[in-house]
Amino acid sequence: MSENPKIRFGIIGCANIARKVARAINLAPNSTLYAIGSRSMEKAHKFAANNGLPETVKIYGSYDQVLDDPCVDAVYMPLPTSLHLHWAVLAAHKKKHLLLEKPVALDVAQLDHILEACESNGVQFMTGTMWLHHPRTAKLKDLISDSKLFGSINYIHSSSTRPGTKEFLENNVRVKPDLDALGALGDLGWYCIEAALWAKDNQLPTTVTALPDVTKNSAGVILSFTASIQWEPLDHTVATIHCSFLSHTSMDLSISASNGTMRCNDYIIPYAENSASFEFTSGAKFAELHIGWSVSPEEVRVISQLPQEALMVQELSRLAEGIREFGYRPDRKWPDISRNTQLVLDAVKKSIDLGCKPVSL
Amino acid sequence: MSENPKIRFGIIGCANIARKVARAINLAPNSTLYAIGSRSMEKAHKFAANNGLPETVKIYGSYDQVLDDPCVDAVYMPLPTSLHLHWAVLAAHKKKHLLLEKPVALDVAQLDHILEACESNGVQFMTGTMWLHHPRTAKLKDLISDSKLFGSINYIHSSSTRPGTKEFLENNVRVKPDLDALGALGDLGWYCIEAALWAKDNQLPTTVTALPDVTKNSAGVILSFTASIQWEPLDHTVATIHCSFLSHTSMDLSISASNGTMRCNDYIIPYAENSASFEFTSGAKFAELHIGWSVSPEEVRVISQLPQEALMVQELSRLAEGIREFGYRPDRKWPDISRNTQLVLDAVKKSIDLGCKPVSL
Repeated sequence: MSENPKIRFGIIGCANIARKVARAINLAPNSTLYAIGSRSMEKAHKFAANNGLPETVKIYGSYDQVLDDPCVDAVYMPLPTSLHLHWAVLAAHKKKHLLLEKPVALDVAQLDHILEACESNGVQFMTGTMWLHHPRTAKLKDLISDSKLFGSINYIHSSSTRPGTKEFLENNVRVKPDLDALGALGDLGWYCIEAALWAKDNQLPTTVTALPDVTKNSAGVILSFTASIQWEPLDHTVATIHCSFLSHTSMDLSISASNGTMRCNDYIIPYAENSASFEFTSGAKFAELHIGWSVSPEEVRVISQLPQEALMVQELSRLAEGIREFGYRPDRKWPDISRNTQLVLDAVKKSIDLGCKPVSL
Repeated sequence: MSENPKIRFGIIGCANIARKVARAINLAPNSTLYAIGSRSMEKAHKFAANNGLPETVKIYGSYDQVLDDPCVDAVYMPLPTSLHLHWAVLAAHKKKHLLLEKPVALDVAQLDHILEACESNGVQFMTGTMWLHHPRTAKLKDLISDSKLFGSINYIHSSSTRPGTKEFLENNVRVKPDLDALGALGDLGWYCIEAALWAKDNQLPTTVTALPDVTKNSAGVILSFTASIQWEPLDHTVATIHCSFLSHTSMDLSISASNGTMRCNDYIIPYAENSASFEFTSGAKFAELHIGWSVSPEEVRVISQLPQEALMVQELSRLAEGIREFGYRPDRKWPDISRNTQLVLDAVKKSIDLGCKPVSL
């Protein structure tokens, strides 16, 4: 302990995304990949081989073994959502810090069980959304918080789409009612809702209304939807979000405020790893005779020394170190963001289930 | 007639936008500014002087005089919307081709009177929306019509916002219930609705739903709204539009399709006059490990020899020449686009009036 050893991660579940996070755990300066666990030794070994994991990484043929290893400090859990409640609560009871893949739970009641387990066991909870940790996101926040340059936020729009093959739309884990029952709402809507809340400093909206263009697969899982999110009437802010497994890859976030406009079209996964940008315009008027603009958008570019997923791991590890070294309480910021995201997500789900009636929060 | 003289325009009303169109009439190769008319000689003279109009341009102190001048072939009419019905119908009866500023009418019943007057008098009708005439718009249409590169359109989003001062929001002609009673819906919503219809080859949607974030001024005129537009269920296309006099200047159009994404953030008035661009992405996937994208957006740039408003005037003049020289019937394309735009606009208005209930078309 006195040597400030790195936070040792175990990965539970060998999903595709685990490859990216395994790399991130080794890139982050304060963490190390200690163990991986799959439902079978064979799958775990294959994952280790395919990803060139060092021989020092422990390979387990069950999730329980990872959680029972006292050397594992933190767990990254990219399991299907319906398995989160059981395994996340168990991880917390085993005193493991938790990096939980989104969507974190099927509803806020489940999430509250998980958060309560983390809280009462003194372990840090964090959802595995990477973009919140990119330095571009911090730069964006600076600019949209500038009351002169940007002013008050009136409108937020975000879309997250990815094209699914016919096979994907019926059989992928993301659209299986027993695995990821929230479908596109969980997988893609999580980001858009989180982005809207991020823009509003995690302030909860008052009303959510789904739009009537919901598409579901034969099992009733949402493949595509659009929704509006409204904050209290005097606040005037409204967001629209659109998420779909039926459209070409997109991840747009745009924010309109009284004095400025911001647009970022790769906010979830930047086009490139080491440098990312967004468009910012402030105080644009039309030129004389309304021919052209007085100001055109500025491209603001931000260099990232580490990939956003490594920064995410670094942040969880930093909080875990604080708990270990200084006896800090788990930080409330990340659980609070996740809980509000889940609350809005639940409201969208309810609105869809009610035939697009407005739902109050 | 045998010398193919240029189409001679009269302008009725000396609104600010008339300055831009007066210039455009002189830039277009097949038109010339022949007369201007205001409610007073003084205003008309001031307009002519301020805009350096040649001495040959006739100056009239009434609208009637412009319409009674047999040398005027076509009329550009940037009057407040509530005056359109009277003056547009009168212009048609006086056999003048009509370039009518948007919003063209307070509702489709009014517009039908105008269109019927144009039709029965054999004159061409066109709404004064300029962006439809930019060569960028044609290039965009080519790309989004490519079934391989772009695929089928699933989602359209457009916003049109401009910041209004406190004075503007209560007293500008655009928010006066007796002049432009449609407020932001007419002034800005016209563009967004037109853009959505343009993307769908002018196919009418089936349902329109306003969202509950409507803001009105003390006279009840719409200052800000959001709405969704849905095509028939099997078509799967949905559009969201957001229009506001409360936000910084923006004019975004983005279209998501099965194989591609298109974004254009200055579609109504390009940042610069002689060259304009948009972003186009097709077939983007994530790179290995979901680190970055396989393809980033391409900037497609289009040079315009003439400003879009001059191309608009040129197109109306071309159609007017066809009627004059060859006895053609007035072209249905432009009236049809305007009528469908008005139908959707009326449906948004109705949905707002009904407390955001879905309205069928």
